[in-house]
Order: sequence, then C-alpha cells, then structure tokens
Amino acid sequence: MEEIPNVLAQRYASGAMREIWSPEGRIIAERDLWIAVLKAQKDLGLPVSADAIASFESVRDQVNLESIQERERVTRHDVKSRIEEFCDLAGAEGVHQGMTSRDLTENVEQLLVLRSLRLIREKSVAAMIALSKRAAQYRDLPITGRTHNVAAQATTYGRRIAMFGEEMLLAWEAFDTLVSRYPARGLKGAVGTQLDTLNLFDGDVAKVVELEERFAKHLGFEQVLGAPGQVYPRSLDFAVASALYQLGSGPASFARTLRLMAGHELASEGFLPGQVGSSAMPHKMNSRSCERIDGFHVILRGQLTMAAGLAGDQWNEGDVSCSVVRRAFLPDCFFAIDGLLETLITVLNQMEANPAVIEQENRHYLPFLLTTTVLMEAVKAGTGRETAHEVIKEHAVATARDIRSAKVRENDLFVRLANDDRIPLSSEDLDAILDRGAKATGMATAQTDAFNARVAEVEKRFPGASSFQPDAIL
Amino acid sequence: MEEIPNVLAQRYASGAMREIWSPEGRIIAERDLWIAVLKAQKDLGLPVSADAIASFESVRDQVNLESIQERERVTRHDVKSRIEEFCDLAGAEGVHQGMTSRDLTENVEQLLVLRSLRLIREKSVAAMIALSKRAAQYRDLPITGRTHNVAAQATTYGRRIAMFGEEMLLAWEAFDTLVSRYPARGLKGAVGTQLDTLNLFDGDVAKVVELEERFAKHLGFEQVLGAPGQVYPRSLDFAVASALYQLGSGPASFARTLRLMAGHELASEGFLPGQVGSSAMPHKMNSRSCERIDGFHVILRGQLTMAAGLAGDQWNEGDVSCSVVRRAFLPDCFFAIDGLLETLITVLNQMEANPAVIEQENRHYLPFLLTTTVLMEAVKAGTGRETAHEVIKEHAVATARDIRSAKVRENDLFVRLANDDRIPLSSEDLDAILDRGAKATGMATAQTDAFNARVAEVEKRFPGASSFQPDAIL
Amino acid sequence: MEEIPNVLAQRYASGAMREIWSPEGRIIAERDLWIAVLKAQKDLGLPVSADAIASFESVRDQVNLESIQERERVTRHDVKSRIEEFCDLAGAEGVHQGMTSRDLTENVEQLLVLRSLRLIREKSVAAMIALSKRAAQYRDLPITGRTHNVAAQATTYGRRIAMFGEEMLLAWEAFDTLVSRYPARGLKGAVGTQLDTLNLFDGDVAKVVELEERFAKHLGFEQVLGAPGQVYPRSLDFAVASALYQLGSGPASFARTLRLMAGHELASEGFLPGQVGSSAMPHKMNSRSCERIDGFHVILRGQLTMAAGLAGDQWNEGDVSCSVVRRAFLPDCFFAIDGLLETLITVLNQMEANPAVIEQENRHYLPFLLTTTVLMEAVKAGTGRETAHEVIKEHAVATARDIRSAKVRENDLFVRLANDDRIPLSSEDLDAILDRGAKATGMATAQTDAFNARVAEVEKRFPGASSFQPDAIL
Amino acid sequence: MEEIPNVLAQRYASGAMREIWSPEGRIIAERDLWIAVLKAQKDLGLPVSADAIASFESVRDQVNLESIQERERVTRHDVKSRIEEFCDLAGAEGVHQGMTSRDLTENVEQLLVLRSLRLIREKSVAAMIALSKRAAQYRDLPITGRTHNVAAQATTYGRRIAMFGEEMLLAWEAFDTLVSRYPARGLKGAVGTQLDTLNLFDGDVAKVVELEERFAKHLGFEQVLGAPGQVYPRSLDFAVASALYQLGSGPASFARTLRLMAGHELASEGFLPGQVGSSAMPHKMNSRSCERIDGFHVILRGQLTMAAGLAGDQWNEGDVSCSVVRRAFLPDCFFAIDGLLETLITVLNQMEANPAVIEQENRHYLPFLLTTTVLMEAVKAGTGRETAHEVIKEHAVATARDIRSAKVRENDLFVRLANDDRIPLSSEDLDAILDRGAKATGMATAQTDAFNARVAEVEKRFPGASSFQPDAIL
Repeated sequence: MEEIPNVLAQRYASGAMREIWSPEGRIIAERDLWIAVLKAQKDLGLPVSADAIASFESVRDQVNLESIQERERVTRHDVKSRIEEFCDLAGAEGVHQGMTSRDLTENVEQLLVLRSLRLIREKSVAAMIALSKRAAQYRDLPITGRTHNVAAQATTYGRRIAMFGEEMLLAWEAFDTLVSRYPARGLKGAVGTQLDTLNLFDGDVAKVVELEERFAKHLGFEQVLGAPGQVYPRSLDFAVASALYQLGSGPASFARTLRLMAGHELASEGFLPGQVGSSAMPHKMNSRSCERIDGFHVILRGQLTMAAGLAGDQWNEGDVSCSVVRRAFLPDCFFAIDGLLETLITVLNQMEANPAVIEQENRHYLPFLLTTTVLMEAVKAGTGRETAHEVIKEHAVATARDIRSAKVRENDLFVRLANDDRIPLSSEDLDAILDRGAKATGMATAQTDAFNARVAEVEKRFPGASSFQPDAIL
Repeated sequence: MEEIPNVLAQRYASGAMREIWSPEGRIIAERDLWIAVLKAQKDLGLPVSADAIASFESVRDQVNLESIQERERVTRHDVKSRIEEFCDLAGAEGVHQGMTSRDLTENVEQLLVLRSLRLIREKSVAAMIALSKRAAQYRDLPITGRTHNVAAQATTYGRRIAMFGEEMLLAWEAFDTLVSRYPARGLKGAVGTQLDTLNLFDGDVAKVVELEERFAKHLGFEQVLGAPGQVYPRSLDFAVASALYQLGSGPASFARTLRLMAGHELASEGFLPGQVGSSAMPHKMNSRSCERIDGFHVILRGQLTMAAGLAGDQWNEGDVSCSVVRRAFLPDCFFAIDGLLETLITVLNQMEANPAVIEQENRHYLPFLLTTTVLMEAVKAGTGRETAHEVIKEHAVATARDIRSAKVRENDLFVRLANDDRIPLSSEDLDAILDRGAKATGMATAQTDAFNARVAEVEKRFPGASSFQPDAIL
Repeated sequence: MEEIPNVLAQRYASGAMREIWSPEGRIIAERDLWIAVLKAQKDLGLPVSADAIASFESVRDQVNLESIQERERVTRHDVKSRIEEFCDLAGAEGVHQGMTSRDLTENVEQLLVLRSLRLIREKSVAAMIALSKRAAQYRDLPITGRTHNVAAQATTYGRRIAMFGEEMLLAWEAFDTLVSRYPARGLKGAVGTQLDTLNLFDGDVAKVVELEERFAKHLGFEQVLGAPGQVYPRSLDFAVASALYQLGSGPASFARTLRLMAGHELASEGFLPGQVGSSAMPHKMNSRSCERIDGFHVILRGQLTMAAGLAGDQWNEGDVSCSVVRRAFLPDCFFAIDGLLETLITVLNQMEANPAVIEQENRHYLPFLLTTTVLMEAVKAGTGRETAHEVIKEHAVATARDIRSAKVRENDLFVRLANDDRIPLSSEDLDAILDRGAKATGMATAQTDAFNARVAEVEKRFPGASSFQPDAIL
Repeated sequence: MEEIPNVLAQRYASGAMREIWSPEGRIIAERDLWIAVLKAQKDLGLPVSADAIASFESVRDQVNLESIQERERVTRHDVKSRIEEFCDLAGAEGVHQGMTSRDLTENVEQLLVLRSLRLIREKSVAAMIALSKRAAQYRDLPITGRTHNVAAQATTYGRRIAMFGEEMLLAWEAFDTLVSRYPARGLKGAVGTQLDTLNLFDGDVAKVVELEERFAKHLGFEQVLGAPGQVYPRSLDFAVASALYQLGSGPASFARTLRLMAGHELASEGFLPGQVGSSAMPHKMNSRSCERIDGFHVILRGQLTMAAGLAGDQWNEGDVSCSVVRRAFLPDCFFAIDGLLETLITVLNQMEANPAVIEQENRHYLPFLLTTTVLMEAVKAGTGRETAHEVIKEHAVATARDIRSAKVRENDLFVRLANDDRIPLSSEDLDAILDRGAKATGMATAQTDAFNARVAEVEKRFPGASSFQPDAIL
C-alpha cells in the first residue's frame, strides 16, 4: 500500500510533538492510564498488588507495534491485543478491570491532548521571550507607524514588536487557564453513570468518586468531569482548537507585518548563517517562514471549523459522528501550532532590521507627520491660525504631488515652508521641529518595557523556556 | 429608502440587548466614556470643573438623534456634531480633550461589548438554574440511555439534562474568566504611543498611566491593554465570539436531543398554556424552539468565522479592513446568543416529559440491556459460561429479529429465556433481574445532585438570575 | 523519527486515490508533464527528438525514491535531482527546458487535482446508481413522512431516498461542469508573463499560445488560464473544495436520516454478511458508517475553510503563504470525499429496511394524518363543518393525550370516531379511509421513477460506474 | 421598541437590492407567485377567470404594510391576512388554492434569491468591464512584478489588473451557470409528494407536472426540482453562498494588492473629485474602500459558514433548524456581495496610478532583475561563465548591502559592473541591457488584450452593464 505521511507532522512539527501522537506514544499513554487506574484501585483497597504495578511500570516503554499487530490478527480485537501484550511483557495481570472501552479511549486521547497543551504552553513562553528580546533590542529605534498601510505617526520598532507580543500574551493567559482547568472525562462507563465502577465497589459512592480523583491526579489532570455521557463534551475540543487559534493570532499579525516591512526593505526575516539570496537575485530575500506562519494560522482556522462542527451536535449520551473528524484534526491542530511556534522562534532568532532604510523612511514622511506642530509654532510666532493652516496645506499638497510625480525625490516640505515668508519660522526653527519629531514616540519605550516585564514574570514559571531552540526548519 | 430591519435584533433578541446596541445606546455609551475621561482628567489635576461633569451627567440620557443629524448636515463631521450636541445640552465644554477619534470609537465599542458580555453572563446563569431545576425534577426518572442513537444502558432523564448542563457550566466558567479580564484599549492616540496624552501631562509618564487606569475603572473595565496599535487586537473579538459559541454548545446539544426525544414522543418542548397542536394534526407538536436554538448555534458559527477572519490579519499599527466586518458581526453575535438563551429558557419553562412512554421504551429495551446480568446469574446458578452465552445470544438475536419483522410486538426475551431449560433461571428470577435493572442507573442521581450543587454556588453570585423571565418569543 | 501516517489516506481513502497523491504518484505526474512539454515543443519545431520522448515514456513508471533522495543529498536541489534521475533512467536529455520551477509545481499539482476530480466524478456516479437502485427497490413502500422530526404525511421510502439522491445529482451536475472546465495554469514563467517561453520562440507569440494549448491537451486539460501570476488563482482551489462539500451534502443528509430511522428501528445500515450485533447486545446495530459519512462532511467543511482562507488573499503576482496550507488540505479533501463515497456505497450495498416496523409506525400515525379526510367525508355525509371539526379535534387531542400517558397503546382515534354519533361515518367507512390513506403517497412513485431516469442518463456516460465496488472499510 | 437597522442593507447595499428584500419586496414577490399559480391553473383548465388574474395583476404593487398588520391582529395568521388583503384590493378570489404554506414560503424565498442572483450577475459584468478598462489603460505601463512581496520580474500594470480580472471572470462563468440552472422547489405540498395538487387534478399526473413547469416559467425559473421534501435542499443555498464568495475573491485580491501598492505610493484608490487628504496629513490617502472590499469578503466567508452548517443536516423530509439561520444570512449575503461590487466599481472609477513612482521602483530593482542577462552577454563577449557569475554575484551582494545600509541611495550595480574590468561590457552595453529590460514584459500586453476580448464577449450579453454607475458610497 502506498504510504502517505502526515505532512504537518513530518515536515513541520517537532520531534517532541510527534512523539506524543505517534503510534508508540499512544501505547505509552494508554499504559500510563492503566497504571494510574491500578494505583487508584490499590489505594482504595481493591486487590491489586504493588508488585504487579511495579512490573507494569518497568515495561511501560517497551513498545513493539509488530507484536501487537500479530496478536490482533489472532484476537481480532484491538484493545484486547494491547492488554495481552502489556500483561505478557510485565508478567502480570489485572489491567483494564472495571473499565469499558470508552473509559480507555476517551481518557487516553485527553491525556495526549493534555501533554500537547503543556508542550505548547511552554513553547509559547519561549516564543514570547524571543519576542521580548527583540522588543528590547529595538525599543529605541524610531520607525514610521502606519495605519491603513500609510504613514501615520512615529513609533519604535521595539514597541511594534511588543504590540504583537502583548496580543500573544493576552491569548497565552487564556490558554494557560484552559490548560490548568482541562478536565478528564474519567471512568464513567458506557453511558456515563459509572455503573460498573459502582458495582466494583459494591455501591460505595464515596469510593467511586475518590477513585476518579486519584486516577486523574496520577495522570496529571486537575479536574474530572461530573456527568459526561459516553464521551466528554466535544465543545471541550472546540475550546482547545479555539485557544490554539487565538494563540497563533499575534504571531500571524507579526509575520504579516514583517512581510510588509520586507517589501519596503525595512527588515527581513533574515537568513541562516552562511546563507545568501540566490546568486542571480541577491535582493530576493523571500519571507517564506513568515508566509508559513500565516499559512499555519489558516490551517488552524480550518481545524477550528472541524471542532466547531462537532460542538453542539451530541445526540443523547453520545455518538461517533465525531470519530473520523477527531482522528484527523486533533493531532493535526497540535502539529500545526507546533510548526507555527517552531517557525516563529526561528524567525525571531534570525530576523534582521535595516536601520538605515528605516531612517530614510522616517525622513521621507516626517515633515508630513509634523505639520500640526509647525502650525502650532507658527501661531505662537504670530501668524494667524487660518493663514498658517492655509499656507501649510498648500505646500504639503504640492510636495506630495511633486513626490508622486517624481518632480522631487526628497521630501522638501520644510524647505518650502522655510522659504515662504507667510510662515515666520526659520530653517533652524524647522530643523529643530524635525529633530524633536523624530524622537516623538510618546510612551513607546515605557510600553515596551512594561511588556518585557510581564514576559519576565511568566518566564519565572517556566525556567527552561528561555533556552529553548527550535528544530531546524525545511 | 426601504427600511430593512436587523432580523436578529428585532425578532429574537431581548429589549435589554437591543438597548445596548441601538443608536441611542451607542450615544449614551459614548457620553459615559467622555464623562469617565473628564473625571479621570479632573482627578489628575487638569482644569476640569466638577460642575461641568455634573452638567454632562445630568443630560446623559437626553438623546435626540434628529438633532444630531441636523448638526452633522452642517458640520459634515459625525464626532464633532455629537460633541456639540452634548455640550449644548449640558451648557458646558471640554469633552474629547486630548483624544483622537480611535480613542473614542474603539473604547465605546468595547464598552458595548462589555455590557453585552455581562448581560449574557447573567442570563446564562438563569439558563443554568432552569436546567438545574429540570434536572432535579427528573433526577430519579429512569430512561433508556442511547449511544449511536441506539439503546445502550439505563440512565435518568435528570442526569441527561445535567450532562448538557455541565457542558454549559464548563463553558460558562471560561466565559466568566473572559468577562472578568476583558481589557479596554485605553486612550492610546493615533498609533498607540499615547503621544497626545503624554503632551497633555507635559511628559509625566506616571500620570498618563494613572489616567487610563482611572478612566477604565470609571467605565467598569478591570484591565487596560499596554501596547495596542490604532486598534485593540482583533483576536480579542475572536475570543469573545468563540466564548459565545462554546457557551451555546451545551444548549445546542440539549435542544438536539430534545428534538430526537420528541420524535419518539418521550418528551416535547411543550406548549404555551392554552396552546394545542393544530386542530388538524394534534399529534404534531413541532420542536420549533429547539430547532431555533440549533439554528442560533449555526449563526454563531458563522459569526465566529468572521471574527476568525480578522484575527491575525493586522497590518502594522492597524487598518480598517475589519471595519465593515465588525459593524456586522459584533452586535449580531450578541443578538444571536441572546436569542438562543431567551429561547432556551422558554423551552426549559415549558417542556414536558411523557413518563409513560419513557417507561414503555425502557421495558422494550431493558431485556437486551440486561443480558450480561442474566449471563452472570445463570453462571452462578450452575450453567457453564460458554453454554449460557450461546443460549442467551440465540434468543436475543431471535427476539430482535421477531421485533423487527413484527412477529412480536413486546420484547419477550425474558419469557423465552424462562422457557429454555438450558438456563436455570425461573420467571421470578428473571423478573427480579428486570426490576433491579430498571433502577440500575449507577451514580446518575448523585451526579445530578453534584451538578445542581455547582449551579447553586454560581447562583449565589447572581441573586437576580433565578427570577429572570424571557421575553415572549414569536 | 516517529512516522505519523496520514490517517485519512491510510484508513479511509481508496488505493486509487492514494496512488494519485503518493510520493510515487507525484513523480509520475511530474514526468507526464515534462513529456507533455517535450511533445508540444517538438510539435512546434524545437529540436526535441522523438527518440528522446520515447525513452522518457518508457521509464515513466520506474520510480525509485531512494535514488532520488540520494541525488538530492548531493545536489541539494530537489527539482534538479528529479531531472537527473529521469534523464539517467531514460538515457536522454532536455526535460524542463524553458521552464521555471512554478511551471512545474503548479501544473503538477493541478494534474493531481484533475485526476482526483475525475476519479471522484465517476465514483459519485457509482454512488448515485446505488442510491437509484435502493430508490427503485422501495419505490412503493409507504412510510411516515416526517417534518420537524414529527409525523406529517405519507411518502414512500424509495421517494425519500430519491430526495437525497436528487440533492446529490444537483451537486454532481455542478461538479461535472467544474471538472470539464478546470483550467491549467500553464507555462507562464516567474510572474506569469511567459517571458522565457517567448524568448525560446524568439518572440513568436502565436507559438507561445500554441505550445500551451498542446501542452494542456496532452495532459487532459480542456482549458488554460490566460493571465495568472506566479500561481494560479487560489479561488480555484476554493471552487474545488466547495464543490466537494456540496457533493457530500446529499449523502450527509441521507446518512443522518438513516441514523434517525435506525433509532426507530425502521431501517439500519446493515451488517456485513455473517456479521451480527455484539453477542451481549444483539439489538445494538450502531450506524457507525453513517456517522462516519457525517463526520467526513464536517472534515470537508474544515478543509473548505482552509481553501476559503487563501482565496482573495493574493499579494501582487503571488506569495506562498498558501504553501503549507495547500500541502495539507489539497490531498486531504480528496481523501475525505473519497472516504465518504466509499462508505456511502458500502452502506447502500448493505442497508436493510424493516417493513413490518415501518408498517407499525404508519398505523400509529395514520389516523392523525387523515383527520382532514375524515372531516371532508363527514361533511359530505351531512354533518355541519363546524361540528365535525370540533368533534374530530376533541377525539384527536384525547387520543394523543392517552397515547402519551400510555392509557392506550394503539392509536384508536378511528374507533372513537366510529363510536361517536355526531360523526355519521361507520367503522367500515373509516376503515376505507384508512386503507386509501396508507396509499396516499401522491406522486411519490412517479418522482422516484423520474429520478431514476435521470441517473440512468448519467450512467450512460460512465459505463464502468455501475460495477464499481468499494474497498472493504474498517 | 429600539429600532436596529440591518447595517449591511442600509449602509452598503444598493437601493435595487434593498428593494428585493424589503418587506414590500417580499409581498410583491408573493403576489407574483400567486398570480403565476393562477395563470398555470387557468392554462390547465381549472376554473380561474382571466378577469380575476387581471385584477390581481393590477393591484400587485399596492402594498400597505399597516393594513396587513391590522388584518393579522384579527386573524392571528400571517398568510391568511396577506391573502385577504390581496383579494380585497383586487376584488377577486382564488389565490393560494391547492397550496400549502411551504409551497408559498419556499418558492417566494427562491424568487427573491433568483432576482438577487440576476442583479449580481449583471453588476459583476459592470465590474469586469471597469476592470477591463483599467487593464486597457495601463496595458503598456511596465511595473515591478513581485512574488513573496519582493521584486521578481517585470510585468505591466494593466496585466496585473487583468490577472485579478481573469480570476473574477473564472468565478463569474461558474456563477452564470448557477444562475441559469437555479431550480425552484415547486408546488410540492407538505412533504413533497404533491398530494394536494394531484387531488386538485383528480390524479392527472401529467397535469401536475405541467402545472409546475408553467408556474416556474411564469416566474422566470428554468428548472423545477423533482423530489424535494418539505423544503428544497439546503445545499442549494450553500451553492449560492459559495458562488458569491468565489465571485468576491478576485476583487478581494485586487483590493489587497492596491492596498499594498498604496503603501509604496505606486497607486491609490483615488479620491472623489474635489476631495483631498486631510489638511494636516495630505500624504494620507487611506485605502478605505479597498479595505472595505476585503472586509466584505470576510463577511461572505462567515455567511458561507452559516450556509455550510445547514447543508447535509436535513432530517427526513425537513425541519426548520434552518429557519432563523436563513432569515439572517440569505438576504445578508446578497447585501454583502452587492456592497462589495458597488465599492469595487467605485474604486475602479476613481483609482489613480503614479507612473513616476512606478518608474522609480523599476529603476531601483531592474539591475538586480537583469543579472542573468548580463551574465549571458558577458559570456558572449568572452568571459568564462564561472568568472562572470562570481563577479556579478560579488557586486550584486555588495550593492544590496549598501542600499540596505543606506551607503548608496540609487541602485548602482551597473555602474559597478561597468567599472570592473573582469566584465567586458561597457556603460553603453549595460545601458542597452537596462533599456531592453525595462520593456521585457513578455506576453503581458497580449494577455491583457485577450482578457479584454473575453470581457467584451460577455458584455454583449449584458448591454446595459457598461453604463452602470454605483450609488455614492459612505
């Protein structure tokens, strides 16, 4: 049979993420779950031996997919064959006791989700640290702020990066809350009533509750759902997909803006050390990685649609019209966000600014951006407001027209104003306005510092994040 | 000009929600914002008189749309005309000082969003209380649990409702967090650097920060963004739309399940007092309101797509490719969720169960659901496991076939088993199994109570919610 | 590295579809394209030898991925390594002459798309034939038509199937048009101006145009785009994804309705020969395949979102923010629709109806559905319209109430009417109404026949379709 | 009650589109339908008088919403009150004979859809003509083609416009096919079996079929569905929404590219006659209308999601979970595409190019774009290929670096090459290459002409389209 690989996993996601969702990773998660159940059962007095648990734990990582497949060919039952394999490896018995198949599959999937969520949470912190470093580096570099893609007012490049960084941080805080609260379905049986577990404990309600809490804690869940059906509510998958999409939004806007800046040669996503543009076209530094980030965001949007298509569509205690959908989008949305973050950090590591071109652009637009200041100063110096307004407008419009028709190359508005007697400001006066104007970036630096301080706070919780390095990207 | 009304607002949303987003509501929100700025400016020593503030406050609700339009025809500037109107009404001056137009429009929209979020938060609590009451009412009514739309195991009707209720509660908790954290863009000027405000305070950074905090507090925001551009990040709109969609998911599944139950005549969404089915078709109690709930959920999904299309698409410090989109979906997503919740509460108020039909269905499926118990008892009574299994299977398959071919009308599996000597169980033994089986709903009741207890906790924070009554629906 | 397979491809899609999109399939498509270019170049007088073309054709299917990778390790250039491999195999030269890399990649992808479109077009015909057969089989079987999931009026089961079949046929006709018109981007060079090809033909515009037409014809395209940029317009991918979604809509509704019918035991998706329900639960014939069909439709919706996210987002002559997105959704949407159709045909092959249960349901609802007829007949027999209406309503409401409260099990409305003197109709009169009513399916049969006739027309164009058999599904 | 207007309709859509969907427009469509039924009934021998038809036709446009509402307050039945109003106005009887309420509502909605489709079809032609005119105007203006937002190869501005025009034309052809085939549901009765009509004609099947055909033809439909249920398949709404989205994609990319070009001051969307930029910021020509076009495209995507959420979700013969959804998105998607096209044509009427700036950009990038030509010429002149390559690369990289660091302002690569003895080309030789290079736009002009010729073909079918003028936009 033709082998078609999962392109998101193989080309873009990290090894760590692939490991979670690989066939081996699933087997291991399943075994972790069985062990967690055994421990909880033992805690609550069921006849489970410590030795058996130790034996199971010792062979947890011995995954032999061929052997399992071989068993399945005989038993024709997938769960049974994996139970047998695990028991034979451990030389022990007793896993899967009192469980239905959904007790296994739902919770195993949630365990994979939880592990992925945690991986992404930390990698996002790494990305925010990288954004923060770049924001700090360029905190004082004035740049022409644009609205409607047109020059509007000065800001700093670092502050621009902090703007997208704060958007990501905002999403991250919501994401962090989701991860902390993410609840397991728990051992609820065929339709959710915990009938089998209740029978296992001869009707002891308190023990049934306690079992689940211990089970969840062993696996790392903070919460367990109280009354799910056969399946956990699919709006929980939606919440995950939505949080991932929101998390990718700040990076997507950052990447889009860097693509725009590259078009003006103000900055680029940079090259790997040693790399140059193609020899034929050295000017052509394509923002391929930034484009890729924006691409991942579109992919996440599609996966969000899939998740949204399942939420609110539960029939009674559950059906599996969601089955094929979740097989597809659940791993894939983690591969996509993982690829997005890997690419983002790579860009942040490599990106370059061209301060000289940035400075040129500032000079080009500054006179236009400063006309209100000129007006104010002219009025102070004695011109009537109406007159000053009229004169400035006249020259500004003419300058803009001359630039667009290439009559002039440099923005000479201030020269024209200096030469017009109706405006009682000298060349020196106007130069001074220009000098101050270039630095009129308001609170940009303070805002950047404030963002960096918030990232530093987050960083404390994830000490390993600052040294994170992405895999090499294709 | 033909007047086309907003159908979501006019047909489905509540008066309270329409008020927020009406032209008058927007004017009032804008005035609240101007007053909040004045107060903050006064707090920080700018020359704003308490009298002026009082005057503005006293005319806040005097909204005359014609008069404003009249002014706009003269000034040809919308903001200016509203400033003039407000000042003339108050006989005072000074609003909009040190603000750019985005300082006004972005924050006003956010104020409308915040007010809507709070309205929905409380209305959702009312809905959860109504769910909780129904869950309590039916907590002990056994019902045939279905998976894959096919009978699977017994549960209770109250527990089924609690299942969807818990899904909603899970979403509500995330929603509540969002509402609490929802940050204002603040007074950030043209590209976000707060240049104008900084100039207003002669470069006093601390005062600029303090102004915003006071401004936000006066309006009821808990947080202010630190470094947005011309606009607040549009992924925040996405977070709102997504939270609304998630909030609607539990209700959508509940409504879908009630539509399914109505098809089996187990329950219906009920009629208004005095209402009957059409005289020609008294059997035809259409689940129109439940269908409508599911419809609203689809609408919210479309609005989510619009919000998702803006997130991650910011160019530099901002553009307004989002403008027309937000004009459309932002009010509409609140009208949709409002209509959904109004309809949901109406259904919860009116819904009816048919316990006799529910009981019939239980009896019809129970023998099939209890075959594992019969097997266990037969083995206890001395039959070999293999034999018992074979015999039970033989009769079960035959019974199912006879039901499908209408050879029998009632499920007589237990009669067949009683009559088969290979199974050493008497009619009485089997009847006893049936009796116990009908009550074998595991932890259903305890789970229902646990859900109700959690809703009761939430209710404490929103004491008015329990007496909420929806507007009459069309 | 952990191998993560593409789950849609490996679990659900057919071998034929996997072949198209497999690494080998891509290599072969690329070689087909190179050969098509060579032929067109030769046709137009460029020095390309017939022998070389023959040599290339003879080794077209000899794909050795390892050898290509080996070359790539040396050249570090993917296209170059594949050219070398092909030339070495053929012992010839000259492929890729006058082409840029996008001339290759865009057209190769389109070739894969075109092949997939054709495969799906024919498989859809097979599905419609299968629908048509089932419609014919059940064309005269009366069934209770439902609106709002509640009994409304009689129809036939065959007509219900034809209803969904017609929805599919409607989509298929649009799909067929799309396939017929699907245009190749053509050999347009780096930004679309055909500069290189024009140089190759020394400025001979007519030959440039002719070359493309021949190239496209050799590959099976009916049209070539006139003025694309670096890439073909991504709204074309959207058109494809959208057509696939529409094509899946009729099947999705059919599957959903079969899931509903299974819940009433009117019908089921059936079992494979020899298969029974689980021994413990013989009643439990889960509609897993129908659920899967609905699941595929949700997946297609997500892929549609991805395609929609690229359409309308072209910057200048093109960028590759679409690259990662298309790598993901383009093959996957074909795997999804392929899986949907394979599953659909499997269901159609295996599905079962339970005429006895259908008959029971009819009898249960028929009296309610026939009250207008009774009214008419009572009026003819002399009762006043008002009186008759009142009496019928009184009994109908009471009967419905008694059924819901299980006072009666069978719908005895007509018995009650027969016993009421105010209605001058005898038991016999009413029985006659009931008999006629059961057959009052209007034009259902004629409509079914009309649908079948249209499918038969389509079938003529695709003679192989009627013998198509799906792969065994998991 | 607060009046909330439909913002898409009131602010953006044309009067013609509002008219179709206004309350009055709906009444008129309904009357058209009743008249069409009467005519068809008369044609087929039912006792309908020509006088009655004439009377109804004569009052068709007398719509008095208050009077209808007054009647509804009495009858409490909306359809009945509209029938009464129509009959009283006409002094005639007999409308709505043999029809169920869905026969009315489904077909009326489809009639509104069909009218909207036709309006959009013609307005799209107007837009393509406007695109074509601009493409013709700039067909020979060389411009720097960009891929990845970076200079790549020369094209012409007219050809760039033709590129987006062709994308629109491609979508239009599919749209045109959809409009031509758009089928009415027809007079099918409660569950689609045409029972009532069949009774009306005493079982004459041929007449039932004939009636529908005549009915449809009177209303302007080319086709009637054969076997719909209570409702027409909702995937037909999806096909409409999808076709509108595709139709907007070319315009959206065009608008996005114009926004990009405005950022480089190569072009702008222009101003209304007499309009200038704000006096303070004359440089600031915001691309508000282009942003709006892109915004409409996002709205259409959301509406597409709503339509997609209904397709494939039919239960049995139909339900109305679609009702509220269609009330919202069906008119709105036409208001959105209408606003998009109105805005697009406005932009096309007003847009401006700055040829001098375009020329500057060409000169800036041309030397880089021509290095392969220099290489070729250098080799012809006797340098070794390797040497030439190395030298050119050295200077190109250095020039790019010097531009980015602002060491040089003008691209002086050719000066450097002229000064390097290793390259045996003189200043004159290099200038000649530059001159030719500026004109090396390949087939750009021919491609533009071909596009224009295709638009001219379409124009013939819609002679009024070329004189279409949009409403003034806000």
